[in-house]
Amino acid sequence: MKIKLNENFKNVSESYLFSTINKKVAEYKEQNPNAPIIKMGIGDVTLPLPKIVIDAMLKATREMGEIDTFRGYPPEWGYTFTKEAVQKYYKNYNVSLTLDDIFISDGAKTDVSNILDILGHNEVYITSPVYPVYIDSNTMNGNSIHIIEGNKGNRFLPLPVGLDNSAKVIYLCSPNNPTGASYTYDELKMWVDYAKSTGSLIIFDSAYEAFIEDKNIPHSIFELEGARECALEIGSLSKSCGFTGVRCGYTIIPANLEINKIWKRREATKFNGVSYVTQRAAEQALSPEGVKACQENIAYYKRNAKALAECFDELGIFYTGGHNSPYIWLECPNGMKSWDFFDFLLTKANVIGTPGVGFGGEGYFRLTSFNTYENTLEAIERIKKVLKK
Amino acid sequence: MKIKLNENFKNVSESYLFSTINKKVAEYKEQNPNAPIIKMGIGDVTLPLPKIVIDAMLKATREMGEIDTFRGYPPEWGYTFTKEAVQKYYKNYNVSLTLDDIFISDGAKTDVSNILDILGHNEVYITSPVYPVYIDSNTMNGNSIHIIEGNKGNRFLPLPVGLDNSAKVIYLCSPNNPTGASYTYDELKMWVDYAKSTGSLIIFDSAYEAFIEDKNIPHSIFELEGARECALEIGSLSKSCGFTGVRCGYTIIPANLEINKIWKRREATKFNGVSYVTQRAAEQALSPEGVKACQENIAYYKRNAKALAECFDELGIFYTGGHNSPYIWLECPNGMKSWDFFDFLLTKANVIGTPGVGFGGEGYFRLTSFNTYENTLEAIERIKKVLKK
Repeated sequence: MKIKLNENFKNVSESYLFSTINKKVAEYKEQNPNAPIIKMGIGDVTLPLPKIVIDAMLKATREMGEIDTFRGYPPEWGYTFTKEAVQKYYKNYNVSLTLDDIFISDGAKTDVSNILDILGHNEVYITSPVYPVYIDSNTMNGNSIHIIEGNKGNRFLPLPVGLDNSAKVIYLCSPNNPTGASYTYDELKMWVDYAKSTGSLIIFDSAYEAFIEDKNIPHSIFELEGARECALEIGSLSKSCGFTGVRCGYTIIPANLEINKIWKRREATKFNGVSYVTQRAAEQALSPEGVKACQENIAYYKRNAKALAECFDELGIFYTGGHNSPYIWLECPNGMKSWDFFDFLLTKANVIGTPGVGFGGEGYFRLTSFNTYENTLEAIERIKKVLKK
Repeated sequence: MKIKLNENFKNVSESYLFSTINKKVAEYKEQNPNAPIIKMGIGDVTLPLPKIVIDAMLKATREMGEIDTFRGYPPEWGYTFTKEAVQKYYKNYNVSLTLDDIFISDGAKTDVSNILDILGHNEVYITSPVYPVYIDSNTMNGNSIHIIEGNKGNRFLPLPVGLDNSAKVIYLCSPNNPTGASYTYDELKMWVDYAKSTGSLIIFDSAYEAFIEDKNIPHSIFELEGARECALEIGSLSKSCGFTGVRCGYTIIPANLEINKIWKRREATKFNGVSYVTQRAAEQALSPEGVKACQENIAYYKRNAKALAECFDELGIFYTGGHNSPYIWLECPNGMKSWDFFDFLLTKANVIGTPGVGFGGEGYFRLTSFNTYENTLEAIERIKKVLKK
């Protein structure tokens, strides 16, 4: 074949993170077949969908089997009933959205990467450590990427300090994956003000907002004045409602922005909308009763996160997250590198986590709260045992 | 906002086709409130999903509500069980696929447009009249588009005659939307040979293959020798299984092609897989029992198409489709232009169709087989009445 390919793919770094982890664990298991391994690297929810959501899906499925209630192509931008559910959900945070601001997606990952279709080649600013999709999708698009470093000094919450005044595309994720760090209103306001004054666009990833409990942490960037002039928000039901296998998210692009119209055209051409059954599930999950049910699952994960945080408090190890987040991001003890600590925990405590270097954070390590409470407590006991002097 | 936007969107022509139709119909209805209008422009399936598919969806939904059977993130390229179902389905056509050739998508529209992400800026050849997504997505990508004209002379099946020898990207859709015209093995072989000899890529859209009944029409381009070196195929369950509201398709990219690896990377970064419930529905719809049930729906639509074809045979009006396709594409009688014939049918027969000019075929008109049998017969009676001399 002689056609031209997208040469930018050659610059996308292959991620061997999880395959390397799997390989190391398999090797260890072969040598230690009875090792009671606990996986604390799980990045996916583990609790089933609440009954109220299942019931909505069953009802919608039955409708698809009857001629009078069968539904064909969904609207590309989402059913009105789903958009209204998102609209009402945002009212919980005192954010007023019009239905025109809201797009229903098959997941945050899809929209946070496809959004580049409607943009030109801008300078892209990405805080690090980071969800690899921002970097990889921009690399595929041939964009010039600048890393804004998160570190112990800024508690992994870099601020717009020392940046030039050119218009740029800025990715922010709060509560952050992988660090769990969350911007306060005051901090996020600095970003909104900076974006407004420079004509920049903030792509705000709110996938973990349902884990927030502190009053001074915004759930949506649109809680901040001025955000409607400079931001779009990518929302997900994956972690908030356990929808990782159901596939539904939403994207908020203020209708006052020109990119709203362009995104509409993009979606009408390159997307055919989200499954009817899934949208009925989302409608129910975002309702007051649905949110209550989903929050019970989140409370379970947060209890795990809290136990992990208390463990590292006790050990005197620096970390972010563990609070307002399912993740805890810790400094590897004794100056260990990420992979060295991975090997240490695997062999000494039979606990598996994720080396921070895989997200761009050498010397750090991510543990998650998606295992059972019992396993989490057992993992904590073992971690304490091997790390206590 | 001062960031750069994708300027190519300025070149995407706004399609007012269906909004203009709706406006004209609304105006007519206002003046003639009791007119017994029959819609023969429907481009979406209307019959409900077969029970066997609904049962699979109900079972999968219940699994999502139990901790032992809950499923999180699906594999980005599809569950093995869905890929195996596609693999077996292709065996019906004597096509051998490896699981690595198969990608499960949320619909043909998504993949047929997103595929451009992995290609460079090639010369793009599109047969016309055409499904507007090919042209619009290439325009958004800034590609140079060449139209290969379908017309009465080539029965809307243009062949690679008189084209230069440069490597190009070629879109083929057979059975075609909107013309219903279908390439025979011999004709499609000419395209495969041309693509192979020039190093071109054929993007073959097989969305309507389940409507084929003639033995000399291929269901898949991979039935042809050499296609694995020069083609990819976009498949859909929308029309074959009534999945327009369920959202599932599949894309076949031979694993021997470099683009297979690049597409894998694209999907792993920019897509999070298809809903578990949807994939269980697809698995069942593609099984022998599922195909049998889905074919009952298709038989219903095909009876409508056949009745339409017989009507225009009787009237001596040239058409394509009506056979191997849910569409019938007819030459407007008496040299009428597409919109004039639209107005004529609306006002004289209270029948609504779609002006061919909306797909790039001035002087032609599309009728579809997705209304009820009774309405189709009634529409045919009226059409005969107003067109018989």
